[in-house]
Amino acid sequence: MAVSMDDDVPLILTLDDSASGASAPLGDLGREELPNENGGSYDVINDASSPAAGDCCAQQSSAPHSWEMNYQEAAIYLQEGENNDKFFTHPKNAKALAAYLFAHNHLFYLMELSTALLLLLLSLCEAPAVPMLRLGIFVHATLELFALIVVVFELSMKMRWLGFQTFIRHKRTMVKTCVLVVQFIEAIVVLVRQTSHVRITRALRCIFLVDCRYCGAVRRNLRQIFQSLPPFIDILLLLLFFMVIFAILGFYLFSPNHSDPYFNTLENSLVNLFVLLTTSNFPDVMMPSYARNPWSCVFFIVYLSIELYFIMNLLLAVVFDTFNDIEKRKFKSLLLHKRTAIQHAYRLLITKQRPSGISFKHFEGLLRFYKPRMCARERYLTFKALNQSNTPLVSLKDFYNFYEVVGLKWKAKRNREHWFDDLPRTAFLIFKGINILVNSRAFQYTMYTVVAVNGIWILVETFMLQGGNFFSRNVPWSYIVFLTIYGVELLLKTTGLGPVEYLSSGWNLFDFSVTLFAFLGLMALAFNMEPFYFIVVLRPLQLLRLFKLKKRYRNVLDTMFELFPRMASLGLTLLIFYYCFAIVGMEFFAGMVYPNCCNTSTVADSYRWVNHTVGNRTVVEEGYYYLNNFDNILNSFVTLFELTVVNDWYIIMEGVTSQTTHWSRLYFMIFYIVTMVVMTIIVAFILDAFVFRMNYTRKNQDSEEDNGIVLEKEISKEEVVGIIELYKRSSAATETAQLQKMVLQMDKYGQMSTLFLGHRSRTKSDLRMKMYEEEIQ
Amino acid sequence: MAVSMDDDVPLILTLDDSASGASAPLGDLGREELPNENGGSYDVINDASSPAAGDCCAQQSSAPHSWEMNYQEAAIYLQEGENNDKFFTHPKNAKALAAYLFAHNHLFYLMELSTALLLLLLSLCEAPAVPMLRLGIFVHATLELFALIVVVFELSMKMRWLGFQTFIRHKRTMVKTCVLVVQFIEAIVVLVRQTSHVRITRALRCIFLVDCRYCGAVRRNLRQIFQSLPPFIDILLLLLFFMVIFAILGFYLFSPNHSDPYFNTLENSLVNLFVLLTTSNFPDVMMPSYARNPWSCVFFIVYLSIELYFIMNLLLAVVFDTFNDIEKRKFKSLLLHKRTAIQHAYRLLITKQRPSGISFKHFEGLLRFYKPRMCARERYLTFKALNQSNTPLVSLKDFYNFYEVVGLKWKAKRNREHWFDDLPRTAFLIFKGINILVNSRAFQYTMYTVVAVNGIWILVETFMLQGGNFFSRNVPWSYIVFLTIYGVELLLKTTGLGPVEYLSSGWNLFDFSVTLFAFLGLMALAFNMEPFYFIVVLRPLQLLRLFKLKKRYRNVLDTMFELFPRMASLGLTLLIFYYCFAIVGMEFFAGMVYPNCCNTSTVADSYRWVNHTVGNRTVVEEGYYYLNNFDNILNSFVTLFELTVVNDWYIIMEGVTSQTTHWSRLYFMIFYIVTMVVMTIIVAFILDAFVFRMNYTRKNQDSEEDNGIVLEKEISKEEVVGIIELYKRSSAATETAQLQKMVLQMDKYGQMSTLFLGHRSRTKSDLRMKMYEEEIQ
Repeated sequence: MAVSMDDDVPLILTLDDSASGASAPLGDLGREELPNENGGSYDVINDASSPAAGDCCAQQSSAPHSWEMNYQEAAIYLQEGENNDKFFTHPKNAKALAAYLFAHNHLFYLMELSTALLLLLLSLCEAPAVPMLRLGIFVHATLELFALIVVVFELSMKMRWLGFQTFIRHKRTMVKTCVLVVQFIEAIVVLVRQTSHVRITRALRCIFLVDCRYCGAVRRNLRQIFQSLPPFIDILLLLLFFMVIFAILGFYLFSPNHSDPYFNTLENSLVNLFVLLTTSNFPDVMMPSYARNPWSCVFFIVYLSIELYFIMNLLLAVVFDTFNDIEKRKFKSLLLHKRTAIQHAYRLLITKQRPSGISFKHFEGLLRFYKPRMCARERYLTFKALNQSNTPLVSLKDFYNFYEVVGLKWKAKRNREHWFDDLPRTAFLIFKGINILVNSRAFQYTMYTVVAVNGIWILVETFMLQGGNFFSRNVPWSYIVFLTIYGVELLLKTTGLGPVEYLSSGWNLFDFSVTLFAFLGLMALAFNMEPFYFIVVLRPLQLLRLFKLKKRYRNVLDTMFELFPRMASLGLTLLIFYYCFAIVGMEFFAGMVYPNCCNTSTVADSYRWVNHTVGNRTVVEEGYYYLNNFDNILNSFVTLFELTVVNDWYIIMEGVTSQTTHWSRLYFMIFYIVTMVVMTIIVAFILDAFVFRMNYTRKNQDSEEDNGIVLEKEISKEEVVGIIELYKRSSAATETAQLQKMVLQMDKYGQMSTLFLGHRSRTKSDLRMKMYEEEIQ
Repeated sequence: MAVSMDDDVPLILTLDDSASGASAPLGDLGREELPNENGGSYDVINDASSPAAGDCCAQQSSAPHSWEMNYQEAAIYLQEGENNDKFFTHPKNAKALAAYLFAHNHLFYLMELSTALLLLLLSLCEAPAVPMLRLGIFVHATLELFALIVVVFELSMKMRWLGFQTFIRHKRTMVKTCVLVVQFIEAIVVLVRQTSHVRITRALRCIFLVDCRYCGAVRRNLRQIFQSLPPFIDILLLLLFFMVIFAILGFYLFSPNHSDPYFNTLENSLVNLFVLLTTSNFPDVMMPSYARNPWSCVFFIVYLSIELYFIMNLLLAVVFDTFNDIEKRKFKSLLLHKRTAIQHAYRLLITKQRPSGISFKHFEGLLRFYKPRMCARERYLTFKALNQSNTPLVSLKDFYNFYEVVGLKWKAKRNREHWFDDLPRTAFLIFKGINILVNSRAFQYTMYTVVAVNGIWILVETFMLQGGNFFSRNVPWSYIVFLTIYGVELLLKTTGLGPVEYLSSGWNLFDFSVTLFAFLGLMALAFNMEPFYFIVVLRPLQLLRLFKLKKRYRNVLDTMFELFPRMASLGLTLLIFYYCFAIVGMEFFAGMVYPNCCNTSTVADSYRWVNHTVGNRTVVEEGYYYLNNFDNILNSFVTLFELTVVNDWYIIMEGVTSQTTHWSRLYFMIFYIVTMVVMTIIVAFILDAFVFRMNYTRKNQDSEEDNGIVLEKEISKEEVVGIIELYKRSSAATETAQLQKMVLQMDKYGQMSTLFLGHRSRTKSDLRMKMYEEEIQ
């Protein structure tokens, strides 16, 4: 083995000819330590005769080459650990690696995403199109074909990376392939026939979006929803069972009353009790029988108590519990997966000579692939932060903290307390005064009072307007006064704290942007533009500052921000369901509902649009429900949102049913159940997140308000010089220059060492780690 | 000290002249061991010159007398511990004890309850009375006065027991007294004026019910509701804050649209957004603006997403969390309270000679007061179950289990496996066969199939009826067939298992009663009575048997039964709120709503009742909402239930508002918020209970299906003889006779000892004990 620069040789070689020899003396860190046997390294699978191996790293010489490959594979392992990719999709040879690298970068991801979005957005222009965006059949079919071909290309890259065997075994990819084939055939059929047929399969287009790398969270949500389904369905059956019993009973009890249209047949009885479950038709469904016999209300009270107040809550309890359990198990398995990934990476980075840990040189090599944007200083700091022992090597135990440490942002610790410490005496005193003022409680509470007065002012002002001429172009003087106060506060705070410190707090940032926008609004108003709504929106927003006052609100808002990504992904999941139902709805119900469409149904009033004359006035009777239609995808989305909110949804259902068959009800009922599932899970999620947070706060009541995770590390001048030497040897010019600048700076201030602070905000995973500490061990 | 029968003297004497001497040598079990200093015993407070002491136990001689008093006080302590009564209300002297005993028995409790109920029920007959129950003013005012005088009597008894100082300090009692005074004055005013004035204070009558001994659970619920309020109100303010912001915004955005009646003034804007929060007016409130500009839906979607889907869930989370926390803390403090009570009781039962434990004699004396119905055998078994050591004394540590053990039901363990073991050979074989058949899986599943077929049959049959002549007097043959099958099943099971074992299972009991009722229904039908509904109700109930099939359902139903008492108390709490609001509603809104009352309001349609002719047909347009009124207390309850369900509640609100002032809306909004609190707490409670249960099941997955708590104890013949001796000495004839019978039975079977099984069902407290095991220690 030709060792060129160092005396170190990897314990395991990747894609290198000498591999078979090197992997023999595994010794103390043998394979048996690694639980996942799938994730071998290239040396096992790779046959020596793969000329493609050099493609991606041909510029390297032979001995460092092997290290470069090891770095890369270790980085891939760590990425897989982070993204929760299973190791059986790990690239198995050089050809696969090339495809893997091609398919794993943001350019490729963006292509994936944009193709999926293009396919989804096509439904804006297809057959029941949004009027403004209507495209010819030829145009949109061609666009579709183009997008599908791009998907084919993506899939072929994936096949190249996974190999045919794994490709077949990977369920999601297989489903995607099948959908692709169907879509392809249909698109061609449309092109040939030059007319669109009933294409419900368009609803499956969401699969392309779900499969995107960026939609990992959506996939997780969907998985969690499906995992929560079995217990959910059990309770749903209970619900339906009681519904059937009550439907039979209601039919027997109320059908003799001929003025009661709700229970005249068993089907009506069932449908109306289903609607009653959503309370949508509540007092109405009871009224005809109640008018006849007041005691009939008992039937409805018992039904609602059992179904709505008991079983529906039970449903929530079951989902909440399952959800909680899944979250816990998921967290544990994720932790285990990350550890396995770290083990794999570790094995690739230790040398034959020193198998007890990773030296900085190899760690730096790993980071070059894992986080190419990291600068040399940060790499060293990360290494130091990981290294708990005094040896120059990072042991496996230390390396387990990799994911926690690698996210830290490093900053040199300032010796100066305030930004104005270096200014001349007089200026210093002035700024110091402002600083004290700004930090004082009195100032804070004065500002709160101003905001509160402002709030009341706005309320009173709006109340006095009462449909008057509020479109006057005069800027109200109160607006200018309050804005001035806010401006002065902003100035004081910026000067007192220094702009950097001022903007580092989220709340200050919020203050700043609201004031800025309000000022912009004022400018626009002064120049006679149309920004009226803009200002109206912004003025009450100032009131949000009041939330700083109370700890609970700060907690709530913090949790809200923490939840936001997850909430967004849940929202997206809901939108995907919406999309499927919107497509199906459009295919079947487009153009069915229009003014005066449903005069024969029981909900005729809501769809009536009459223009009749009473005396000498023209009275327009307008039932607006014809607007809740499936005529294009945007309308469908609004209609589906209304169905989600549930109130009066039966009017939409009955309207459509009266124009089609009574099987249409199935669509609406299934939609209700699906949204119920998703909504229950959203509720369970919010519940879980907040209860978790509150428990956490209660457990750590005595500890300080946490500002995320902070780590302190000191680097001495000698260390920096040492690293410079290292980089010089591997002729990395930029890194060397960076570090030399650092040395110069240290010389300038006459310091022998610099203190760095590593900082990152606390994630849910950190919190969980702390909460489940005992259970995990 | 004159010791008559035993050599033992109580360590602490109660109400005895020799007390001051006896309490001196406290030694190893001094007062410092007892955390609650309030609960001293009588000897401390009692002055020797109280002749009333003898009143309740005059028949006892002097030395046993002191023991009897000790037993009684120990029993009182234990009762206080069980009922979570604070020790500062502990009777302090003999006079107080007499009053305490008078006020603490079921007769007194029943009087309390019935007076409270009478007062509450009076509102059925007062001013806006239920037509059938209307009483003259003179009659109901006299009744009221009578009930109030009874309450005065109750309170005076309580004062006698508590003493004036404690009486004043006891908040609940003070509130009750104040309300009583007000009610008294008002009742007299009504009697004098012979006409009822606006008596909103009648709403306070519920306090008499809440204060009843039997309504302890309701009091606990109310306390828990009030404890959950502060965080609830915080989030509510957040909710209202966003509502105000959106109301201002909505007013600016939509009031230029003159066809939009929902946002034309700021007040309307606010009210409609409040209603929108309940989704009651959902698509309607959006429609006028949506018709003008489709993008205005964004306003509503954002509003609903923030308010309904986020903050409302947050509210649930906060309540759930607070509730959970309170439950945990309550459980702990209750446990502590019970322990203190046990310590107090223990101190009264040990003797000066043997201060290390309680002997059976004294334990028996305690039980005579604590559980007078317990027979001698059970007392001894309880003693044995408590006694973990081999000494004849129960130590304090053992005595801590008192509450868990005293609830056990003891039964001699049978040696016979089946009831037919003693029958002759042939009969035995036949019954054994039936037994095997009945216990076989095949038989079980056959029955499930029969039930399922029955269910489908009923469904199909009802579906075929379709408004036909289902009032025919012929009994359908299917009914007879299925009933026969169920009858045969019942017979087989009863004979196979023996009637006692058969009925000991809740499910069998259920089967039995359903079948029995169905049979009774058939009989009634045969004799041409009117039990049709009766049968209709019962037939689908058979389907409930199917729930046995799945473990989850069994769990759900078990939990439901466990929850039932708590649910009932929560329901009662809700009813108390209903009552208050019903009274206020009746005082202000009675008679306000009638057909065609609200033709000027926006909800006129719902109240319209027209009888007009179209062509040659008479069309009755019936808006039934006038039925949702406050004309009497029953109607008010139904109306309030409709308001609780929330759907279309604004129609009721607007109807009433149009007839009164717009301040009436306040009533409805406050009611909504109050029910929201109570409902959220009910939801939180159900969630908590089920999640707890499911967690418990998960934790104890491997353990057997639990059949409650079972304890096994053996009693030998010598022991029984020993106890008989003891009873003979204290000349307790009935106990001696009982035990002698037992000895005779043991002689008959030639046994030297009998094995007894103590059994009770597991309560939530047991479960909690097991779940919080670590935390409690």
